[in-house]
Amino acid sequence: MGSGGATSGDRELALELGELVARAGWLLLTGGRNEGVMDAASEGAKRVAGSLTIGVLPSESDKNVSKFVDVAIFSGMNNARNAINVLSSDVVVICGTMGPGTASEASLAIKSERSVILLAPGDPAERFFTSLKAAKPVQVATTAPDVIDKIRALFPNR
Amino acid sequence: MGSGGATSGDRELALELGELVARAGWLLLTGGRNEGVMDAASEGAKRVAGSLTIGVLPSESDKNVSKFVDVAIFSGMNNARNAINVLSSDVVVICGTMGPGTASEASLAIKSERSVILLAPGDPAERFFTSLKAAKPVQVATTAPDVIDKIRALFPNR
Amino acid sequence: MGSGGATSGDRELALELGELVARAGWLLLTGGRNEGVMDAASEGAKRVAGSLTIGVLPSESDKNVSKFVDVAIFSGMNNARNAINVLSSDVVVICGTMGPGTASEASLAIKSERSVILLAPGDPAERFFTSLKAAKPVQVATTAPDVIDKIRALFPNR
Amino acid sequence: MGSGGATSGDRELALELGELVARAGWLLLTGGRNEGVMDAASEGAKRVAGSLTIGVLPSESDKNVSKFVDVAIFSGMNNARNAINVLSSDVVVICGTMGPGTASEASLAIKSERSVILLAPGDPAERFFTSLKAAKPVQVATTAPDVIDKIRALFPNR
Repeated sequence: MGSGGATSGDRELALELGELVARAGWLLLTGGRNEGVMDAASEGAKRVAGSLTIGVLPSESDKNVSKFVDVAIFSGMNNARNAINVLSSDVVVICGTMGPGTASEASLAIKSERSVILLAPGDPAERFFTSLKAAKPVQVATTAPDVIDKIRALFPNR
Repeated sequence: MGSGGATSGDRELALELGELVARAGWLLLTGGRNEGVMDAASEGAKRVAGSLTIGVLPSESDKNVSKFVDVAIFSGMNNARNAINVLSSDVVVICGTMGPGTASEASLAIKSERSVILLAPGDPAERFFTSLKAAKPVQVATTAPDVIDKIRALFPNR
Repeated sequence: MGSGGATSGDRELALELGELVARAGWLLLTGGRNEGVMDAASEGAKRVAGSLTIGVLPSESDKNVSKFVDVAIFSGMNNARNAINVLSSDVVVICGTMGPGTASEASLAIKSERSVILLAPGDPAERFFTSLKAAKPVQVATTAPDVIDKIRALFPNR
Repeated sequence: MGSGGATSGDRELALELGELVARAGWLLLTGGRNEGVMDAASEGAKRVAGSLTIGVLPSESDKNVSKFVDVAIFSGMNNARNAINVLSSDVVVICGTMGPGTASEASLAIKSERSVILLAPGDPAERFFTSLKAAKPVQVATTAPDVIDKIRALFPNR
């Protein structure tokens, strides 16, 4: 998960992360739109690594879907779809500096007791999210390979 | 789409329909639970025809998921997930005698201007749903192969 | 609940029903938009009978809200809001000939085990909805006062 | 909005805030459950100040509703209901130290371009939420009367 208006640095990080998730044999699920972290991570998983990709979208129809998303789920629920994204993920990786939509996903993931990894979140986000009471401790990673290592440690048998 | 409490006749119809959808090269999306039409259609697509299958579930977690569903989307929204199922489908096939949940999917599909095919709906349902004003006419089929023919006619290039 | 594109006859029925609901001391909840049955029922409860009125809207903001709605809840969820309307009601009255959105509300109300009264639904709708398996039997009324009598019988102490 | 598991200090703050909101002639909307900030704010508005109160609940039915809520909207959508609460509010006041559910409401309120006031949020939350890009600047208050002053400044004509 990450901002639709991500910086180019965060987009590069997302591209690498998407590729590594796919090469690890896991399935990438994003917010599905054709911009920012969603689009770059999907591109990494699909174009670079050849994997199937899933997107859960805020809209009712296929405007603004990333061309790197194979399975598009249209929620028609605007921002309420953020709750679906985190419930449908075993691990929620928050990639780069958050916008408010991404912050809601990080929050909902903690609330829903999902494993959360913040990748290069910046200092205010790291301090805030690690201060929240969480059933599973919020982890912080600095690189995409570091995220993969942390996921392997969480799910040693996958 | 179809009832979780379907008759064995409707389950057989769903199994055949799931298989034929997969053999046509299309992707099957169901309500994802481990019973009734959802489960049988997913079994037909996955176990019999070897296809990928998608399920959009009412729950927040993986209790009661059909073992024939590969990609499980957890909405956590109970019956409101019915709106997502129909928005995410190019064609909504209603399989067998409807329960009230399935009736809401048929209704929402018409409201959302999706193509709707009723397979062996029974007389009261056929009369009611074909009486509704619809952007795309509601069609009625009597067999699973008949559904496939009607979908091909709707999307001649897929 | 009723169609946004209701006939003038169904709007008159809704106006009377909204007034009688309010005069009975009950709270009217509708879909909240400024057209059809929603608007007329809210007008009956508020302008004619002076009651508080509630509306649960599909939109994210206050465009197209009925001017007869006091408390507007913005779901931002498009048709998925229909699930909220029925869950929030002790009795779901379906007023007049249904469009597909209203049909989804009737269906979801039965699925959610709410008491459902169809007011002048027309023959195909009456036959279909009374054929569904329901925890509480679906009732049919022919006039607004008849609806009020049926609600009193359901909740003798209110 | 605030945590269901709030400290007694945050509950007292919420009680005072609910009372002051009601005395200002505004309508209080909370998450509606019978605990924490929701319950205390509703008590302040209803028991102390005699106002109407609204609650939008995660559940499908009336278990765990605050007894100080007059109008209970049942979303049946679990945490996705947080999106509804913020869309239905002109000003979103976040009361006290946040749990993750409340953090999602603060985030969604900023994303939905609502006016947001953080009341005694603590340092990590203040630093994080004021660092997010926001259409309307996130404000921080230290007391309940301070919140009221800030709302009056936002809506001078109400």
